[in-house]
Amino acid sequence: MDRIESPDELRRQVRAGAFRRPTTGHAPGFLQGNLAILPQAFAADFLAFCAKNPKPCPLLGVSEPGDPRLPALAEDLDIRTDVPGYRVFRNGGEPERVGDLRALWREDLVTFVLGCSFSFEESLARARIPVRHIAAGRNVPMYVTNLETHRAGPFGGPMVVSMRAFAPADAIRAVVLSERQPLAHGAPVHFGDPAAIGIRDLADPEFGDPPVMAPGDVPVFWACGVTPQVAIRGARPDLAITHEPGHMLVTDRPAEGAGIGL
Amino acid sequence: MDRIESPDELRRQVRAGAFRRPTTGHAPGFLQGNLAILPQAFAADFLAFCAKNPKPCPLLGVSEPGDPRLPALAEDLDIRTDVPGYRVFRNGGEPERVGDLRALWREDLVTFVLGCSFSFEESLARARIPVRHIAAGRNVPMYVTNLETHRAGPFGGPMVVSMRAFAPADAIRAVVLSERQPLAHGAPVHFGDPAAIGIRDLADPEFGDPPVMAPGDVPVFWACGVTPQVAIRGARPDLAITHEPGHMLVTDRPAEGAGIGL
Repeated sequence: MDRIESPDELRRQVRAGAFRRPTTGHAPGFLQGNLAILPQAFAADFLAFCAKNPKPCPLLGVSEPGDPRLPALAEDLDIRTDVPGYRVFRNGGEPERVGDLRALWREDLVTFVLGCSFSFEESLARARIPVRHIAAGRNVPMYVTNLETHRAGPFGGPMVVSMRAFAPADAIRAVVLSERQPLAHGAPVHFGDPAAIGIRDLADPEFGDPPVMAPGDVPVFWACGVTPQVAIRGARPDLAITHEPGHMLVTDRPAEGAGIGL
Repeated sequence: MDRIESPDELRRQVRAGAFRRPTTGHAPGFLQGNLAILPQAFAADFLAFCAKNPKPCPLLGVSEPGDPRLPALAEDLDIRTDVPGYRVFRNGGEPERVGDLRALWREDLVTFVLGCSFSFEESLARARIPVRHIAAGRNVPMYVTNLETHRAGPFGGPMVVSMRAFAPADAIRAVVLSERQPLAHGAPVHFGDPAAIGIRDLADPEFGDPPVMAPGDVPVFWACGVTPQVAIRGARPDLAITHEPGHMLVTDRPAEGAGIGL
């Protein structure tokens, strides 16, 4: 499939129902975001949770209650139709998959958009640092750790991390490059021994695909956007909506220098 | 002993013969430098060696032949008297230790001042990252590796690295902080498995003191200013002068933002 260069062209296709797949690799150079939609009764606590846990939950934008727009992220954005796949959770139960939110929308819903790792992975690619899972056509492996998030009201629980494996010299460059992107989870939280952060088996991640590692590789662990999803399920709101994994909101905000204008 | 705050007060005491000890911890916030003095016949090749190997040999300044001043580093500087200890090498042999260079000075000598790791270690201290060898009152351990420098004329040979051990989360911060100081050897060249860069026994460094490590620590390796000293001995010039290890040239250049004005 061809790469779609422009974020508004991509949102137009999503809105028309013509794009229902992962957004990775599309609209390069623009921030993509994780989605969390919650009833207003949970919004203040979730905002505090993001503020207390900026590495797993870097906040890109928050809407007014009931307003499906987020003009700071894209002028034309309608959050009910512009994400290529949604998951709807009721009372913390199993998710229902839907293609748009128009039938579900309520006047008390607040939208949160959180940074994801795609723009950081783009900067690794520009630096010619091999990213094993992308080269292998796999999803990144993700693990539940024994690192606790900072609790805010009903939101808490373990930090989830994603793992990328590198030769040590590339790992050093990946640390430097990722630290420059605090809205894409920033610098890693750990590297080396998985057991030191409570990961029992590197070969068996809780989310994503098994890892790809070359001889001499060191595993490097970043805070992951699945962390707020786990926290939201644990809080058991009557209604919560997230994106389908990999099916991100694509914004008009350039990834480069994204933290400067906040 | 009391800490001397001002670089020109420190140089004044050195010049008067009243300060003949390591400079670490003195004149905090100012760049300190490794010294290399060579006959003009070797100067062009050594300059090329530094340019090709900026991590072990970050060039802070170079003098005119025969001129003992380096006004870009300090207005009053006289390189013959302002370093607290010198080593004199003839034809690559064993060093002679001298307190000043006035009797040795020649009209063909060129002075090179190279960055050292002290300003980077200061930034670790400000970031409250424990540096084990400093806390233990030891010298940093240094190792000859199987990483080859880029040769220039008679100058070449292995890269020497210094090792500092950290908990992984501190190692990540140390990578970020050191990368911001390219004149203090910049980001590490390796971490983890010592054998991957040809170090046979971490407990037995070629230079400095045996390492201090806590449980769970990861060894992190930086390019080291001993690299050019090894290259100089290998080149066997009729005369070469370096500083006594730890007895650095203290400059008036602020360490913070030092790379900006070059």
